[in-house]
Amino acid sequence: MTNPFRGIAKEIKLVAMDFDGVLSDGGIYIDCKGNQMKKFDVKDGMGIKLLQKNGLHIALISGSTSNIINERANSLKIDIVFKGVENKLYAIGKVQKKLNIKSEQTLFLGDDINDLLVLPAVKMFLAPANAHPACIKNAEWVGKSKGGEGFIREFTDLFLLALNINPLLPFATSNH
Amino acid sequence: MTNPFRGIAKEIKLVAMDFDGVLSDGGIYIDCKGNQMKKFDVKDGMGIKLLQKNGLHIALISGSTSNIINERANSLKIDIVFKGVENKLYAIGKVQKKLNIKSEQTLFLGDDINDLLVLPAVKMFLAPANAHPACIKNAEWVGKSKGGEGFIREFTDLFLLALNINPLLPFATSNH
Amino acid sequence: MTNPFRGIAKEIKLVAMDFDGVLSDGGIYIDCKGNQMKKFDVKDGMGIKLLQKNGLHIALISGSTSNIINERANSLKIDIVFKGVENKLYAIGKVQKKLNIKSEQTLFLGDDINDLLVLPAVKMFLAPANAHPACIKNAEWVGKSKGGEGFIREFTDLFLLALNINPLLPFATSNH
Amino acid sequence: MTNPFRGIAKEIKLVAMDFDGVLSDGGIYIDCKGNQMKKFDVKDGMGIKLLQKNGLHIALISGSTSNIINERANSLKIDIVFKGVENKLYAIGKVQKKLNIKSEQTLFLGDDINDLLVLPAVKMFLAPANAHPACIKNAEWVGKSKGGEGFIREFTDLFLLALNINPLLPFATSNH
Repeated sequence: MTNPFRGIAKEIKLVAMDFDGVLSDGGIYIDCKGNQMKKFDVKDGMGIKLLQKNGLHIALISGSTSNIINERANSLKIDIVFKGVENKLYAIGKVQKKLNIKSEQTLFLGDDINDLLVLPAVKMFLAPANAHPACIKNAEWVGKSKGGEGFIREFTDLFLLALNINPLLPFATSNH
Repeated sequence: MTNPFRGIAKEIKLVAMDFDGVLSDGGIYIDCKGNQMKKFDVKDGMGIKLLQKNGLHIALISGSTSNIINERANSLKIDIVFKGVENKLYAIGKVQKKLNIKSEQTLFLGDDINDLLVLPAVKMFLAPANAHPACIKNAEWVGKSKGGEGFIREFTDLFLLALNINPLLPFATSNH
Repeated sequence: MTNPFRGIAKEIKLVAMDFDGVLSDGGIYIDCKGNQMKKFDVKDGMGIKLLQKNGLHIALISGSTSNIINERANSLKIDIVFKGVENKLYAIGKVQKKLNIKSEQTLFLGDDINDLLVLPAVKMFLAPANAHPACIKNAEWVGKSKGGEGFIREFTDLFLLALNINPLLPFATSNH
Repeated sequence: MTNPFRGIAKEIKLVAMDFDGVLSDGGIYIDCKGNQMKKFDVKDGMGIKLLQKNGLHIALISGSTSNIINERANSLKIDIVFKGVENKLYAIGKVQKKLNIKSEQTLFLGDDINDLLVLPAVKMFLAPANAHPACIKNAEWVGKSKGGEGFIREFTDLFLLALNINPLLPFATSNH
C-alpha cells in the first residue's frame, strides 16, 4: 500500500481538524449538574506533539462552544482554536489568511457532514474509521483507527514517514 | 435493501424515544458521593438537530428521574420530556393528545421491555443493535448501531432519505 | 441449548455477587483528587429489579471498601452489602445464617480468584464472559455478556425462564 | 505455547512500567474546568498485588506529571514513582541503582515510542496488544490484552506460573 502522503507531505504547512469525534472520541459525558466531560487518547496527544516538533501548524475548528476544547488545546499547546463555528469553510479561510498558508498546503481531519464544507479549501480531507458515511465517501484517506482512539497518531506516523522522518524511533519526551 | 421508512416517513410527526440505552449508551457512572454521569454521542445529537430542522417533534419518555435527562434535553432543545414514567403507553398518549398527533404519525425508539408497552400507540417501534432480545423481536426496524453510539443518527439518515432529503449533504451548523 | 437453571431455579432463595467486574464493568475512574467513579448498566439494574420482584434475596459481597458500592446498592434497593471482605466464604456464611438460607439455595456471581473461595457454599458459581480464566474454568455457567455490560440481565432472563416466568413480556416500571 | 518467562522469572526483581496506556487504558477524560480522570482495571490491580506478594518491586516511570499517577500508586501501594520523565533510560537507571538491581533482573512494560529508550537497561520489554507498532516490533512479549484492560494481570499470571506459583488458586484478599 502506497503512502497517501508521499509526494505531498513536504508542501503541507497546516493540519486543521474538527474537535468532537476527531481529537475526542465523539462521546459527551454529562452529569446531573450539566457538567460535561470528553475523552481523548494519549497516543493521539503524542501525534500532535510530533507534528508540532516538525514545524506543522495545528488548528482546531469546532462547531461546539465547550470550554473542554480550550482545556485540551492548552495541554497540547495548540494556539489556533475556532469555537462555535457555523461555517467551517469561512473559518479555515481565516486561519489560512492569518498564517499566509494556501489551500494546497492544508489538510483537514473531519468526521461529520458540517466538516465537508472545507473541501474546496484543502489539499486532502482525512476521516477516521467511524466517521459519518458522507465523510468516508469524500475523504482522500480513511484511517483504520476511530476518532479519539489513535486516528491522529495513525495519520501522524504515515505523514512523518512520507517526510522520511522515522516516527517509530524512540525519543526522549514527556507525554500528554 | 429497501428503506423501511419509504412510504411512511411523510406521515410521521412525532419521534418519541426512551432515554437510557437509546439517547445514552445505557451506562451509569456513579462516584463515591452518589453523583451520576451518562454518556452520549455527538453524531446522535446532530441527528436530533436534523430531525428538528425538518419539522419533527422529539419527545423523551423515561422511567428514570435523573436530572441528566433535562440537561441533555436542554442542550438538544428537546422540550417534551416525561421522567419517572411507570407506564409508557399512558405517557405517549399524553404527548400525542397534547400535540394532536395520532398513533399512525408516531415512531418510538426503545431498548428494554418497559418500552414495549407503547406498541399499540405507535406506527413503528425501532430498536438499537444492543437492545434487549424482546425489543429486537418486536421492532419493525433494528439499527446496526448501538444505543448512544450512532443509533439515532443511523435512523435519522434513513428517515430523511425516505423523505427525499439528502442527509449526507454538508451544511453549515454547530454540533452538540 | 438447555437452560442451566431448569430444575434448580425454584430452590434458589439468594443471589449473591461480587461488585467490581460483576455489577460494575471492572473499571475504576480516578481523578486528580483521588475521587473514584465506576460504571454500571441500566439493563443489569432492570435485572436486579426483576429478581427482587420475584422474591429473590440479593447480596453484594466485595473486597473493596468503596462508598460507590453503597450508592449503587441504595439505588437498586439492595440491603445486604458486605464490604472490605477478605474471605468471601466466611461472608457468604454470615449472609446465609442471617437469612436462614442453605448453600443449595444460593447462587454466586463472581469474576476473580478471590470469589472462588465461595465454591463450597453455593449451588452454582456463575461468571461473566470476561471473568478471570480460573473463574471461567470453575463456573457452572459462563454468560455471553461481560460484567457490567448485561451479564446480570442475561442471567436474570434465563433464571426467570427456568421459573416459567416470561422475562420478555413488556411491563410497566421505572428503571435505574 | 511456551511460557516466555520460564527460565528467567526467578531472576527478576523489578517490574517497571509506563503509566498511560499500560496501567491506565490510555484515555484522558477532561471536564470543562480542566480536571482530568483516567481509567484503570480492577483485575490489573489484583495483578500488581500478586506481584508484590511474591516479593517483586514495582516502579511507575511516566512522562506525565498528573497527580492521578500518585493517586493510583497510593491505592496499589506502589512507592517507586517517577513522573515528568523525559528520558526513561536515565530514570530506570536511578531505580536500579537505588534498589541495587541489575538490568538482567528488570522487566519493563511500555506502549509508546518514548518507552523504547529503556531497551538497553532491561531483560525484557513487554507490550500490550494495542501498543504503538514500534513497541510491538521491539517487544519480547506482546499480551493479548490491551493496556488498562487486563494486560498487567495477563503478564502476572504467566510470570507467576513461570515461578511455579499457581495464580489460578482462589485466595482470600480484598481488591482495588
